[in-house]
Amino acid sequence: MRILDTKNFSVPGFKTWGIHCGIKKEVKKDLALIVSDREAAVAGVFTRNRVKAAPVLVDMARARSGKGRVIVANSGCANACTGKRGLSDAHATAELAARELGVKPDAVYVASTGVIGEFLPMQKVATGISLATGLLSPSGWEQAAEAIMTTDIYPKLSVVREEIGGKTITVAGIAKGSGMIHPGLATMLCFIVTDALIPAPALKRALLSSADQSFNNITIDGESSTNDMILCMANGAAGNKRPAAGGKDIKKFQACLDAVTRSLAMQVVRDGEGATKFVELTVQTAKNPVEAKRAAMAVAKSSLVKTALFGEDANWGRIMVALGNAGVEMDEARTDIFIGKAKIVEKGLGQGKAAEREAALALKQREVRITIDLHKGKAAATVWTCDLSYEYVKINAAYRS
Amino acid sequence: MRILDTKNFSVPGFKTWGIHCGIKKEVKKDLALIVSDREAAVAGVFTRNRVKAAPVLVDMARARSGKGRVIVANSGCANACTGKRGLSDAHATAELAARELGVKPDAVYVASTGVIGEFLPMQKVATGISLATGLLSPSGWEQAAEAIMTTDIYPKLSVVREEIGGKTITVAGIAKGSGMIHPGLATMLCFIVTDALIPAPALKRALLSSADQSFNNITIDGESSTNDMILCMANGAAGNKRPAAGGKDIKKFQACLDAVTRSLAMQVVRDGEGATKFVELTVQTAKNPVEAKRAAMAVAKSSLVKTALFGEDANWGRIMVALGNAGVEMDEARTDIFIGKAKIVEKGLGQGKAAEREAALALKQREVRITIDLHKGKAAATVWTCDLSYEYVKINAAYRS
Repeated sequence: MRILDTKNFSVPGFKTWGIHCGIKKEVKKDLALIVSDREAAVAGVFTRNRVKAAPVLVDMARARSGKGRVIVANSGCANACTGKRGLSDAHATAELAARELGVKPDAVYVASTGVIGEFLPMQKVATGISLATGLLSPSGWEQAAEAIMTTDIYPKLSVVREEIGGKTITVAGIAKGSGMIHPGLATMLCFIVTDALIPAPALKRALLSSADQSFNNITIDGESSTNDMILCMANGAAGNKRPAAGGKDIKKFQACLDAVTRSLAMQVVRDGEGATKFVELTVQTAKNPVEAKRAAMAVAKSSLVKTALFGEDANWGRIMVALGNAGVEMDEARTDIFIGKAKIVEKGLGQGKAAEREAALALKQREVRITIDLHKGKAAATVWTCDLSYEYVKINAAYRS
Repeated sequence: MRILDTKNFSVPGFKTWGIHCGIKKEVKKDLALIVSDREAAVAGVFTRNRVKAAPVLVDMARARSGKGRVIVANSGCANACTGKRGLSDAHATAELAARELGVKPDAVYVASTGVIGEFLPMQKVATGISLATGLLSPSGWEQAAEAIMTTDIYPKLSVVREEIGGKTITVAGIAKGSGMIHPGLATMLCFIVTDALIPAPALKRALLSSADQSFNNITIDGESSTNDMILCMANGAAGNKRPAAGGKDIKKFQACLDAVTRSLAMQVVRDGEGATKFVELTVQTAKNPVEAKRAAMAVAKSSLVKTALFGEDANWGRIMVALGNAGVEMDEARTDIFIGKAKIVEKGLGQGKAAEREAALALKQREVRITIDLHKGKAAATVWTCDLSYEYVKINAAYRS
């Protein structure tokens, strides 16, 4: 597998673009189109929040068919908590795109992100779809990635190439964060395309597994949004032969998909609202994988741990508090904690000034690694998080104004 | 029941005081003594965090006896995550107080709050106990309340009086917050004393019930600490006759205890780290009481809701997101949300500019009331929380430095 530069790549059989059509108040891109030149297999993963935005409801129904050709995504308005009118706006968006592009409305998936409780400005959406259709390009991915941003600082892209069944295939994705990031997704949109031929059921299995080792291992503030989704389209333009279930081709495809989702998930954390640190947190020697993940997430989402990280303070007591609250088997007197390479806690006890000084140095870096040994079993889990800064409060206090 | 002024009250049969003995770096009070002149019934409620500080372990064992005479509490050092030495320091603290006061070590309860992972400076603790013993006074409650503060801005006291069985009884309490406040307690110490005669088993039942309607209904940042405890001593100095189980005297006592714990819990939220708003949040028409409380807590602890409150932004979409993530039966299309008296959401839909303006006015107040109707049943729950401000981040980023 080769990891490609995200400047000006293309994926055979796909065109895309992103434009500004006035959904956002500022002059920033706010509508993206992704179009396959032929019918593609489609798989989706959707928010587990009970409150689901209109586009999520539309796409969950569409995805049952396992096929499609187009994604229309807007930022600036979430079309969430908008009732029947919101649902009819989401359908109307799909119909507008279908008409412009000469496809059936059933083949069009819709996605939205932005403020909750406002209606889509349908006149602007119509203009935007028409405008974007005219500009569609095989190498428009950066424009599309920009058009789905909200409080994100930079666009998020990832692309890899691999040989499968004698053919070169490409897997590429774009994503947006950046608040409300938590397992079970986030205000997180992620669109992945590939020219590989992958039947829809295999695509769905691969996507679920891939989400579990990427987007479901990150947390920014412990919330899952109404609008989160990952959509993946596989259009077969590469001409590879159908990969056998469990065979080496499907494994290679899985590896490509995993590389893309993991890269995008990490980009989302790095660009977390107000984040100044990227933190990789591993809990090992936990009783079982579920407890390992639960313990890691409990520490990763603790406001007290996250503010200490922002303050570059090796306050391991707060890590211990979060572990004690995690609802997993742990015993203070067996627990070891490392910050970077510094073992600051051994068997539940602080290891003194020298270890704290070494940990303090590690905490001054932009990237921080925390490792926790519970000595209760053999399971491990790694999650990614960021710190909690003044900027997070500022962004979220002022978001709608 | 009469609510008394918290200046210079006393509770028959009790003496108390708080002093500075150098456990805190700054010259602020850091050690309190509470002493009953006779054996008292004692009940306790302790943190559910799996990591329990040494004083919690000592007191949990003591409380099984249902009796005691003394509480020694220090701030500045939590004596948590301190292993065997911590446990032996906690026992030594009790022994020092026992010797000074001429009681058995078994009659002494210990409590600590402050930085985790540091050892108690026992020389200073010994000096402090000796100093405080010399100053014990029937009206030293404000000094004691100050001596248990950490990041608290003001001391927290509450006192009520009532007639029981022809005698006047007093119930008084002191508490400290102010970060890590969450159900299942918090970095929360609360000491309640009464001169009523209440047998230990009845005292324990009353205290558990009282904690459930007060400290277990507040949240500041979703964490329960290693050191939380509520201790209640009833010494019988009032000379009332033993109240009958389920009788009107025990009900009157319960009402007094509830008034004190509720007042202290609210003071803790009002003084939440960096809080600029006090928020009372009610979920009504929930399916059952458990879901009502779960839904209310999910909203009350959401960082996104709390930052919007700080920003005085009627961002009801975030309330909806938190409800959708709460794991309770809810249906967006049935949900109503009120901020103050403004119904900003009816049947899942925003109610427009006029309602938002009215809500915005309510949000400008220091005290905010949020009411949520799920229309799924008849249960209700009220919880108290505060907003998430820059100051919270500042306090927690810098706590140890």
